[in-house]
Amino acid sequence: MNEKTTAELENLRGLIDGVDQQLLHLLRKRLDLVAQVGAVKHGAGLPIYAPQREANMLAKRRAEAKEMNIAPQLIEDILRRLMRESYLNEKDVGFKQVKADLGHVVIVGGEGKLGGLFSQMLTLSGYQVKSLDKDDWVNSESIFDGAGLVIVTVPINITCELIADKLTNLPKDCILADLTSIKGAPVEAMLAAHSGPVLGLHPMFGPDVGSLAKQVVVVCHGRDADAYQWLIEQIEIWGARIVEAEPSKHDKAMQLVQAMRHFSSFVYGLNLYKEEADIESLLQFSSPIYRLELAMVGRLFAQSPELYADIIFAQEESLVAISDYLDNYSQALSILKSGNRDAFVEQFAEVSRWFGDFAPQFQRESRAMLQSVNDMKTG
Amino acid sequence: MNEKTTAELENLRGLIDGVDQQLLHLLRKRLDLVAQVGAVKHGAGLPIYAPQREANMLAKRRAEAKEMNIAPQLIEDILRRLMRESYLNEKDVGFKQVKADLGHVVIVGGEGKLGGLFSQMLTLSGYQVKSLDKDDWVNSESIFDGAGLVIVTVPINITCELIADKLTNLPKDCILADLTSIKGAPVEAMLAAHSGPVLGLHPMFGPDVGSLAKQVVVVCHGRDADAYQWLIEQIEIWGARIVEAEPSKHDKAMQLVQAMRHFSSFVYGLNLYKEEADIESLLQFSSPIYRLELAMVGRLFAQSPELYADIIFAQEESLVAISDYLDNYSQALSILKSGNRDAFVEQFAEVSRWFGDFAPQFQRESRAMLQSVNDMKTG
Repeated sequence: MNEKTTAELENLRGLIDGVDQQLLHLLRKRLDLVAQVGAVKHGAGLPIYAPQREANMLAKRRAEAKEMNIAPQLIEDILRRLMRESYLNEKDVGFKQVKADLGHVVIVGGEGKLGGLFSQMLTLSGYQVKSLDKDDWVNSESIFDGAGLVIVTVPINITCELIADKLTNLPKDCILADLTSIKGAPVEAMLAAHSGPVLGLHPMFGPDVGSLAKQVVVVCHGRDADAYQWLIEQIEIWGARIVEAEPSKHDKAMQLVQAMRHFSSFVYGLNLYKEEADIESLLQFSSPIYRLELAMVGRLFAQSPELYADIIFAQEESLVAISDYLDNYSQALSILKSGNRDAFVEQFAEVSRWFGDFAPQFQRESRAMLQSVNDMKTG
Repeated sequence: MNEKTTAELENLRGLIDGVDQQLLHLLRKRLDLVAQVGAVKHGAGLPIYAPQREANMLAKRRAEAKEMNIAPQLIEDILRRLMRESYLNEKDVGFKQVKADLGHVVIVGGEGKLGGLFSQMLTLSGYQVKSLDKDDWVNSESIFDGAGLVIVTVPINITCELIADKLTNLPKDCILADLTSIKGAPVEAMLAAHSGPVLGLHPMFGPDVGSLAKQVVVVCHGRDADAYQWLIEQIEIWGARIVEAEPSKHDKAMQLVQAMRHFSSFVYGLNLYKEEADIESLLQFSSPIYRLELAMVGRLFAQSPELYADIIFAQEESLVAISDYLDNYSQALSILKSGNRDAFVEQFAEVSRWFGDFAPQFQRESRAMLQSVNDMKTG
């Protein structure tokens, strides 16, 4: 590189550094303004996530970007990232309390990660929260005394038994809810154990989300919905989206969405291990899509085996879905072994027709993801 | 919402809109400055992607963000997104031509998507490019006459035959290269057909990438590396990262990275179809991780069945990897059927130990991805 080039590059880079510093100041200003919006919403008890306002704002910014010859997707991506940051910061001001005259809340299993998250959100909303864990059952009578809401969040395989054995003497008006990832059996167990209001909840996210904004919480109604309507509103104020479902329909979907998915990811990892794959070299050769897939499998093995065992063993019916996959794999493999390329292409085309418009939609979605994966590369 | 709240929110939103407009102006300014950097680099023949400069710049910005009480990851994510945009724009200025005295380039299969991308990149770098497709073989003699580089990019299943049949009479000093996703057989076929310089290339990305910045291109050396060193430099100027590999090692990795991966995604889609899954309702219940996975499977079915058949049928050895997976699935399923939860947990823990530090690394990587998926939600 000659001296002139070096000087030109240094000069330009200095100017870019200056722009970036202005950028940081703008970010600081925007975060502060949004925090003020949060405070006003907090006072008025409005949900932190307002889809319509967000969509309008993005549409305006996209149009302005276009006029300035900036890709609309660029400003949208940057603003979405900024909004995530603002949602995270909402926690600092706390949330409006919907039900001020509620007795305290008891979280059975409050020391678990998900229990801890709900405990935090409820505390930030002004409720008094008590945790009840393994060693606290000797004092359970005093802990439950005066409770307005009891939330059960213990491993799936002991949930129903615990409800039937230990939650039969709650205050009559107390709401009983659970956070279990299956809903049929736990909701039935709660209805049988407790004569007051009952609802089943399934938060569709891991405890490591920073904010509940845009996350889904499934609600299965049990009994006396009027009595717990405030709780649903409270969860919406945290930013989550409520999806109501019949327990049986929810559980059927979970066989595919959770049990089968986790099991096949588990086998994928098991297979790499048995093949003695060299992860380092796989990563070297990886296209963005494979790197992402490897990360999705690998993340499983950074987490608790018990948690996944619980989910996979939770419903007997999941075994059917998991076995069906084996049959389909086996049949497709026999096409491969016969060398019948045309039969494979035909089978592929049949599935494509079934996916219909979802296939191109998924392609667009995943393209955006793959670009982000590529952005993160460092060398 | 009372009047005071409405007025307060409107006032704050007006201020946010003002900040966003300033933000757009800064983005415009930054894109222009980086375009000037691109022009200087173009003149000097420097690669568009400079990992070290990027890492230094990000480290400085993160430190400045921290001082202003802004999450360092926020500014890093925004700058990475901006850099992607700038890489895309590099195409507008073109690229430095490394080998000015080269004869023209012939792309055999230039009408295909990947052929089209390489044709575009070479043209933007000042080379004269001719495409040779099915109907052009009658004129092949005149097309090849004076060629300095011939790139073969036709379906895998006809690559070796085409090389052996039709590429035996190239000019002596002409470089012969291919873009096939396996490397052993094509490189051998090229060495046998042509006595001049030979190299195998495998671009590890789809033809829909907007820019080659940070993308991986695998290089398998064939013969007379000095003669084609300029081509490797040219690809680096486009921003790609070169990974050198032995053909056999590359092909072995592809059995897992491509054949097995594509096949198991195919079966996943096939299984959803056979189970008559309701995609709409699966999406409703989806956690970010499942939505992402569904998108990764669904994207397959928006693409050509022939392309995937080619990749899956390309190497006989892939059948072994694909069959091994079936065996492992079947064995793991028998643990499930026996109801032996402890055995499952033990097996899981064994794989976790094997993943070692990669598991938490993948968890961190995928967490960032999942947050992006959530950012994109609209309602």
